[in-house]
Amino acid sequence: MADQYAQSSEHTRPTELPAIPAIPAIRWDEPPEGPVLVLLDQTRLPGEESELVCTDAPALVDAIRTLAVRGAPLLGIAGAYGVALAAVRGFDVDEAADALAGARPTAVNLAYGVRRAQAAYRTAIAGGDGVGGAAGAALAAARALHAEDARASTEMAARGLALLDELLPGGGHRILTHCNTGALVSGGEGTAFAVALKAHREGSLRRLWVDETRPLLQGARLTAYEAARNEMAYTLLTDNAAGSLFAAGEVDAVLIGADRIAADGSVANKVGSYPLAVLARYHHVPFIVVAPVTTVDPATPDGASIEVELRSGHEVTEVTVPYAPMTGRDAGGGIPVAPLGTQAYNPAFDVTPPELVTAIVTEEGVLSPVTAEGLVELCARSRQVTIS
Amino acid sequence: MADQYAQSSEHTRPTELPAIPAIPAIRWDEPPEGPVLVLLDQTRLPGEESELVCTDAPALVDAIRTLAVRGAPLLGIAGAYGVALAAVRGFDVDEAADALAGARPTAVNLAYGVRRAQAAYRTAIAGGDGVGGAAGAALAAARALHAEDARASTEMAARGLALLDELLPGGGHRILTHCNTGALVSGGEGTAFAVALKAHREGSLRRLWVDETRPLLQGARLTAYEAARNEMAYTLLTDNAAGSLFAAGEVDAVLIGADRIAADGSVANKVGSYPLAVLARYHHVPFIVVAPVTTVDPATPDGASIEVELRSGHEVTEVTVPYAPMTGRDAGGGIPVAPLGTQAYNPAFDVTPPELVTAIVTEEGVLSPVTAEGLVELCARSRQVTIS
Repeated sequence: MADQYAQSSEHTRPTELPAIPAIPAIRWDEPPEGPVLVLLDQTRLPGEESELVCTDAPALVDAIRTLAVRGAPLLGIAGAYGVALAAVRGFDVDEAADALAGARPTAVNLAYGVRRAQAAYRTAIAGGDGVGGAAGAALAAARALHAEDARASTEMAARGLALLDELLPGGGHRILTHCNTGALVSGGEGTAFAVALKAHREGSLRRLWVDETRPLLQGARLTAYEAARNEMAYTLLTDNAAGSLFAAGEVDAVLIGADRIAADGSVANKVGSYPLAVLARYHHVPFIVVAPVTTVDPATPDGASIEVELRSGHEVTEVTVPYAPMTGRDAGGGIPVAPLGTQAYNPAFDVTPPELVTAIVTEEGVLSPVTAEGLVELCARSRQVTIS
Repeated sequence: MADQYAQSSEHTRPTELPAIPAIPAIRWDEPPEGPVLVLLDQTRLPGEESELVCTDAPALVDAIRTLAVRGAPLLGIAGAYGVALAAVRGFDVDEAADALAGARPTAVNLAYGVRRAQAAYRTAIAGGDGVGGAAGAALAAARALHAEDARASTEMAARGLALLDELLPGGGHRILTHCNTGALVSGGEGTAFAVALKAHREGSLRRLWVDETRPLLQGARLTAYEAARNEMAYTLLTDNAAGSLFAAGEVDAVLIGADRIAADGSVANKVGSYPLAVLARYHHVPFIVVAPVTTVDPATPDGASIEVELRSGHEVTEVTVPYAPMTGRDAGGGIPVAPLGTQAYNPAFDVTPPELVTAIVTEEGVLSPVTAEGLVELCARSRQVTIS
């Protein structure tokens, strides 16, 4: 159960090191049986740190769909490694790339990572490298993306905290966050969470308010786990209760990540982000999106063009706690909490229009106010977007 | 499990009858062993319809605290019967009344029901009736409140639907509701839910959007159960996803109940109501509160004066599905979903200021706009409030 992670002081970890899990969120391994992609199974956190070993792209597609691996930047890294895995193991690379890129439709980083590794593979083939050399090129592209994301994370944390300090010169920040955006979603320490973590390390975080993030409870399971490991002052709440915090003046800023940013600055992120943006606006609280430039998708003109993934209603009509053995499981594998046959509306994401976003923090710079022109300029600063 | 309630067509219930559960939410019974108050245990719905028999006020206080009996109007009825039970069984009536009135601090109806039965008892004693006669007077007061609430329910449904039809002349109402406000909370068919039910019966309900209502899932467990039994077109959603519905123009009106209405028109209701009010305002959607006049508390001047009950953090950090046997239960009796030791902020209610409330629908009339003067006038029409 969860108690092994309860007391972060039990962990004999030097405080200056990033408080990543003992098992990294993702790693490439090459045991004698052949190369594999090893994932930390996030569906089993915080109760259990277990590895999920993918030997081919279909296994990774499953892991992406079940959210064993998740979070916008990490999905990009996973997608790139998935293409490399198909290449190294001699599968059809284009077929694997298409399956991986389509595993979750909203996260643009996934497609970005997939296409980048695929492009490296194709360029190598075209250059006469042969399949072995091309597979090596795909793997090198995945590793480069992994390293770039870690650096981007550090940069976003610095820029995000500078922005907070500028907007809220009094310090003692009380930050509300939604879903999970830390080391579990990144090659580094994450996006929005990384900003809060940096504030914590510099002594300017007064409270991290953690939305539990229904239906899959990424806030309760994952953000609370990362906050506890980092010994941050955090408090969990139902997504419902955020309104009371705003009304009581207990929120200084909202920090969230993003799964896709359209060309007009509309932000697709975990469902529940948009209501927070509306509450933030009503209460004159900054609403800040933290995401790498790869999250910007120039090919998606506006919010209405963003395809929002609709997930199974069972995530709402049943309660599933995967690491706890339960009797009475039903159609979706969980315990029904609603009458059987109940239909549920279960969008994975929602879209926040640019006028409700105070700023977008990227590794290349901070955009505020959020405009289409500003996004173009920001993307131009990044070689990565040109590559895509 | 829940499947027994899945197909409402399986129930051989005449459609013109109110679709109340086979076991009523509350009833007074007089078996040979002595009078008892019998409750439908709402913590076990929708999986199980089981009775909870209270033989004294402390048992009822427990039932109120664990939410086996809940919902503003029903709490008033329960409180009145609780005083009668103490009186009939020869316990200290004033002591019982104080314990009952204090069982949940936010719901004003509870205190109202308690004090009304207590006043009837005292008046009878003062009039020389003796304890037997006074106990009968307390019971009569409880029964009168029960019957009045059923009538108020019918009246609110009619006034609420008339208002909807006036605000939304196109018909085909798509109503979003939060928590549970139907036959399970009332001597009749409820408050906000009763309006939707009447719309359904008259063919003008296109969709009932049911917020699941974390942390205790009264929407998923109870409102979905009542909607299914009544064969309404309903869809369940996480509270988070309501924002997406507003943004997509899928909500024509929000209908909620109330646990206390302050003299200035501030409405305390289940946590998550206030964010809906802000979303409704942002999207120009009517936000309508349906509650009996007994919910108005002239002694509470404004929203800031409303005491909001803070409940155990275990309701957030653990998942509890009482009717399903589970292994791995922890401190609060559920399965932990957050790291052990996680602190949670868990207010049971929030407060919506009058300027965000389009109308308050009561059995005495509709107040719109919501003003202190209007509330005074509305209360003056009701003999009930004078009695309190």
